[in-house]
Amino acid sequence: MLAFKEAYKEILNAAEKALSGINEEQIEHMTEFLINSYENRILVIGAGRSGLIGKSFAMRLMHLGFHVYVLGETITPSIGKGDLIIAISGSGSTQLSITASMIAKNVGASIIAITSYPNSELGRIADHVVQLKGRTKLAKETDYFLRQITGLHEPLAPLATIFEVSSLILCDSVIVELMVRMGKTEEDLRNEHATIE
Amino acid sequence: MLAFKEAYKEILNAAEKALSGINEEQIEHMTEFLINSYENRILVIGAGRSGLIGKSFAMRLMHLGFHVYVLGETITPSIGKGDLIIAISGSGSTQLSITASMIAKNVGASIIAITSYPNSELGRIADHVVQLKGRTKLAKETDYFLRQITGLHEPLAPLATIFEVSSLILCDSVIVELMVRMGKTEEDLRNEHATIE
Amino acid sequence: MLAFKEAYKEILNAAEKALSGINEEQIEHMTEFLINSYENRILVIGAGRSGLIGKSFAMRLMHLGFHVYVLGETITPSIGKGDLIIAISGSGSTQLSITASMIAKNVGASIIAITSYPNSELGRIADHVVQLKGRTKLAKETDYFLRQITGLHEPLAPLATIFEVSSLILCDSVIVELMVRMGKTEEDLRNEHATIE
Amino acid sequence: MLAFKEAYKEILNAAEKALSGINEEQIEHMTEFLINSYENRILVIGAGRSGLIGKSFAMRLMHLGFHVYVLGETITPSIGKGDLIIAISGSGSTQLSITASMIAKNVGASIIAITSYPNSELGRIADHVVQLKGRTKLAKETDYFLRQITGLHEPLAPLATIFEVSSLILCDSVIVELMVRMGKTEEDLRNEHATIE
Repeated sequence: MLAFKEAYKEILNAAEKALSGINEEQIEHMTEFLINSYENRILVIGAGRSGLIGKSFAMRLMHLGFHVYVLGETITPSIGKGDLIIAISGSGSTQLSITASMIAKNVGASIIAITSYPNSELGRIADHVVQLKGRTKLAKETDYFLRQITGLHEPLAPLATIFEVSSLILCDSVIVELMVRMGKTEEDLRNEHATIE
Repeated sequence: MLAFKEAYKEILNAAEKALSGINEEQIEHMTEFLINSYENRILVIGAGRSGLIGKSFAMRLMHLGFHVYVLGETITPSIGKGDLIIAISGSGSTQLSITASMIAKNVGASIIAITSYPNSELGRIADHVVQLKGRTKLAKETDYFLRQITGLHEPLAPLATIFEVSSLILCDSVIVELMVRMGKTEEDLRNEHATIE
Repeated sequence: MLAFKEAYKEILNAAEKALSGINEEQIEHMTEFLINSYENRILVIGAGRSGLIGKSFAMRLMHLGFHVYVLGETITPSIGKGDLIIAISGSGSTQLSITASMIAKNVGASIIAITSYPNSELGRIADHVVQLKGRTKLAKETDYFLRQITGLHEPLAPLATIFEVSSLILCDSVIVELMVRMGKTEEDLRNEHATIE
Repeated sequence: MLAFKEAYKEILNAAEKALSGINEEQIEHMTEFLINSYENRILVIGAGRSGLIGKSFAMRLMHLGFHVYVLGETITPSIGKGDLIIAISGSGSTQLSITASMIAKNVGASIIAITSYPNSELGRIADHVVQLKGRTKLAKETDYFLRQITGLHEPLAPLATIFEVSSLILCDSVIVELMVRMGKTEEDLRNEHATIE
């Protein structure tokens, strides 16, 4: 059972590092963008597991009363000038998210990218970037020593796991920030929560 | 920016508590169930944000070569004797997950429930429960003191946030446990990762 | 290539029979329910291919400006008194749709069922039923003669194909009825159509 | 109730015209591509309502035992040389489907496009095109006279309705063709049908 325990500790440590490394001004701007878009449409974009994190965020934004949609689902309306795109991609090089962001930019929507790489193609398209570091060199060294200790030959957080877990916590913490600024209570969220599950 | 920082710290602390409170034998059994189902079908069930955590887990199980499916998506085949259901529900009382688990049980599939409440309706249907505590009395008190300090009047992790974040990390750590036991490398996962994103 | 041609002709014939067999008053009531719900929430429910037909309908209702959602997708809010459920199930015995409809009824929402069986469990829960006949005894006999002619030993529209195709056309025709009554033009629909595809 | 009745008749007529206008050799080739891909992976691509038709087709291909997946869903593995893409787009100019098809082509997968426009960007990328005509000039004239008669000022099949209904019937008829060629029975399909609905 060693691997399970080592893995969750490593993920928590790496997530703590990633989250404490965030530039708070970037969260400040992201929060303002969101609040300014309260009367407009917000469209969440992401592929694979980053897309699932985006959906988790969209669900909470809906609980707060935002007009939020997810690319690729049924109820995804037109967007245009004044609307906001939130694109999540660790690498910033996910082709479908880039194509979608380009279309959005061309119709006048603003784009916030949550990515590890501000200089990626997605990062450069975006109006505002929240940088969230995923697996870094340092993390790799940490991996190395952990492997020495545990005898594991594989990373304890394969592929983009750290970015994904950290971005879930990042988004959930932005929700709390929004609750405070907008004066929303947990009861307000519960009232909008899906009735049928 | 206080709320954002307090929130992510609270989420990390609560997740650490939840994960360290897991009975390792329950993870041991879950891992064995999964490995024994390698030639069978695995169906992941969950509603709302728990459903999204389930999809994140399913994606990684697919990367490991499992025949895994998600209830409600297009490619969800028949299941029967020998197949495995993984149902995720914090409360264990999500009606659609209970209905689905009952149908699965009736055709002879085994059910693993990840829930905070082993004595819930879902917990009692399940063949095996992994208990993952979400927001507890203790957490509420912690919330209380944090609110005193921060001046916030709302929880820093509304609704089932702690359960959801913790179950994502739980599932990702089970993936590492499976990698070690099955001798799979990160390269194996990458080979099965979606090409088009 | 005989089978392909015979199949599409059989599907078109069977769909024509199914659609001409609809009681127009049931469409009249369905249209009124929808128009009366314009300021409320509409939730579309269905499993498998019936669920996909429901999503196609939901997409067009959104193009007409309805506040419509799909059970199981990310942006599915709370529902209550005054809201409308549209449940599609050929057999009327799809367990997850029945469970969902029961929950909706308990919170005071109205339910329209599109089904071949008004006396099914779903039909009996519903406030209003639109009966759309799928494969019937007559259709089976027709199948029989077609098989004699074509030498095929299998139906030209397996499982619930006729119900599914007919209900897509039914829903698309209800959209036209709504356009006429609400004075909406194709241009109105286009304006709400998703920008990013 | 005039509009509803006129609409379903118009849709059926237009679908009949679209389906009878198909070049049977294109269906012949599509069927061969599919049968030759029985041991490989098939990925279905489409946006909006065309995407939903693609999912309906994918579900039936799964019932026939194909290893079929849908772009954007959870269980979508890597694809490569020898694998098959089925892209559905009336206009053939849906940007996300084009981007996805380009990525697929670059890793050596074959592409079948179902579209009204063989010379569209998607049509030109595809290895094989099945041309299915949607709303054409002739259809517009027909619309015109129908409007004169019915007093309607809007088309009885707005946007891409005809293409979508026709492509559902096209795909369902290809399923029958496959059943005949592969010696599959309705019972075989039922055995693979989702147990939990």
